[in-house]
Amino acid sequence: MRVGVIGGGQLARMMVPPAVELGVELRVLAEAPDSSATIAATAVGDYTDAATVLAFARDVDVVTFDHEHVPQAVLTQLVAAGVVVRPGPDALAVAQDKTLMRRVLSELGAPVPAHAVVRDAGELAQFLDDHTGVAVVKTPRGGYDGKGVRVVHGAHEADDWFAGGDLLAEEFVPFRRELAQLVARRPSGQIAAWPLVETLQRDGVCAEVIAPAPGGDALTTKAAELTRRIAEGLDVTGVLAVELFETETGELLVNELAMRPHNSGHWSIDGAVTDQFEQHLRAVLDLPLGSTEIRAPWTVMVNILGGPVDGDLDRARRIALADQPTAAVHLYGKDPRPGRKIGHVTAYSADLDDAAYVARAAAAAFD
Amino acid sequence: MRVGVIGGGQLARMMVPPAVELGVELRVLAEAPDSSATIAATAVGDYTDAATVLAFARDVDVVTFDHEHVPQAVLTQLVAAGVVVRPGPDALAVAQDKTLMRRVLSELGAPVPAHAVVRDAGELAQFLDDHTGVAVVKTPRGGYDGKGVRVVHGAHEADDWFAGGDLLAEEFVPFRRELAQLVARRPSGQIAAWPLVETLQRDGVCAEVIAPAPGGDALTTKAAELTRRIAEGLDVTGVLAVELFETETGELLVNELAMRPHNSGHWSIDGAVTDQFEQHLRAVLDLPLGSTEIRAPWTVMVNILGGPVDGDLDRARRIALADQPTAAVHLYGKDPRPGRKIGHVTAYSADLDDAAYVARAAAAAFD
Repeated sequence: MRVGVIGGGQLARMMVPPAVELGVELRVLAEAPDSSATIAATAVGDYTDAATVLAFARDVDVVTFDHEHVPQAVLTQLVAAGVVVRPGPDALAVAQDKTLMRRVLSELGAPVPAHAVVRDAGELAQFLDDHTGVAVVKTPRGGYDGKGVRVVHGAHEADDWFAGGDLLAEEFVPFRRELAQLVARRPSGQIAAWPLVETLQRDGVCAEVIAPAPGGDALTTKAAELTRRIAEGLDVTGVLAVELFETETGELLVNELAMRPHNSGHWSIDGAVTDQFEQHLRAVLDLPLGSTEIRAPWTVMVNILGGPVDGDLDRARRIALADQPTAAVHLYGKDPRPGRKIGHVTAYSADLDDAAYVARAAAAAFD
Repeated sequence: MRVGVIGGGQLARMMVPPAVELGVELRVLAEAPDSSATIAATAVGDYTDAATVLAFARDVDVVTFDHEHVPQAVLTQLVAAGVVVRPGPDALAVAQDKTLMRRVLSELGAPVPAHAVVRDAGELAQFLDDHTGVAVVKTPRGGYDGKGVRVVHGAHEADDWFAGGDLLAEEFVPFRRELAQLVARRPSGQIAAWPLVETLQRDGVCAEVIAPAPGGDALTTKAAELTRRIAEGLDVTGVLAVELFETETGELLVNELAMRPHNSGHWSIDGAVTDQFEQHLRAVLDLPLGSTEIRAPWTVMVNILGGPVDGDLDRARRIALADQPTAAVHLYGKDPRPGRKIGHVTAYSADLDDAAYVARAAAAAFD
């Protein structure tokens, strides 16, 4: 069995270990020769070029993705050529366009923040007036890790973005915390949900994940049911990540969707019986899904952002391994650069404080 | 950091996942283009040819092994050329020659079966006379998985082997069971031991491993101490596996040594905080070793031998995954063939019977 992955980032890279273990052949179409997933890269090319992607896809059983940026025109050509694409173009369209995402989620009855499409500063002013003078403005396409998202208090604070088209304005949700619910779904319909997790952002970028979400029992069923409704409603195959706000009144609102393995699921490599990368491969191959049970009462994942200021990753890794022999250190084969996700560390324990201490201490070796 | 592995079998293959996670570059010199470790194969060539191996080793930080069959002449040329080889030639020489192994183990004070080098049927007859009429005869070199080992009751039952040189005759040890003790050792001296495990052989081939060895508490310290003495005495770097007999009187005798990850350690991928493949990479790179603690009270590993009679591995895998969603299925990218190790299955549980049931049931899907 052969899976083709478009995109050679760390998500494709982290599919390599489960592909090796399951005996599945992985092929990656990478953007550059030195991608994170270079060990599995069988082609280097432009994923916006239909001929390149079609040539790559010829010999695989299913095509899936490291990211959601493959143009619809390319996706539909793949499908027309008989290539099995999971998730499919219609599902991916929803992940690609935040305006469409909001509309479709609303149609599915999923709770979302109040929002409106704004075409200019005047319309943004109106939205601000209607929503306590603060709004979260988003470019509908291409954003990630806090890019393309801005909190504004004045109607002219998004002027530079209107040149690119309409924007999405959303209410600023006063949330208690952010959560994420991941599921995997097969074409045949089987769904498996991991426990609800808590995510901690810094500067719009995921910094830490705690699995399961502390005190999240009351929300678990609700989050899993909501995520199942979205996965089925959008016919998502593979992993679906739903980023959630827990509001100050204890309600869940859907923030974002991702239709691929997601940073909020990295903990599962070390913390769940079946991790999100193996499960994604199983799901897109329509293989039976594995157990999503946790392997320890608490698992904490801490991202390595930027990397050591002296650029000496070998030294940092040595220190991390020496200081924390129970931590699992994951590096993505990327050069250190400010703000860049170059790896993550996971620790697990019967004690949450202990897991958090170990993961943070190991990650700190990379500061 | 770059590790070069000579040999492209399943042991090299199973180094790929931890190399990816640790951010270590793995390069494999494979015997054939379609080896188990093909995803990491950067060269295909003859490991008995010094020029081939030297060219392969040029750009790596350390050379290590998927097997112990690289000739001493090649190993010493590598060292002379300044290549870091771990384990080193002197240590590997002991693993390569069972006669030397017996002598060196005896010198280290390690308990071994009574044995003698026999040059012909006459000497074998004498050995049989001295040892209750039964002996285990071994070819000193090149054996594995029961090959090159024969139980004989008559002096002429090894005649076909004497043409190849002297043989090793050993007493037939009436053992209670077979055990294995694995450790990893760094050049700087750090050693980490996994728990003692029980191994079950069928037809001379490892069939199952139970970790930790049931009721093995009394033997654990003794086995770890013995293995440490061997690792230090032979200056082994990387993983050292010591196969042991537990005799009917409760003593430990050393059966065989392996200086690489070993079938009796495959359980650690799913059952230990740090598995033998990651630990081997850490050890040969002289990186700090990880924790060898167990992740579940019981882990059971069952080998997949031969594979499905209809050759349909995809179907067998689908059945295994469907029937046992908590089992970890590992396939080696090999075609089914009678007696061939093509994969293994691991299951873990708080209950030994449960772990054994799940692992055996999943493995049975491949019969």
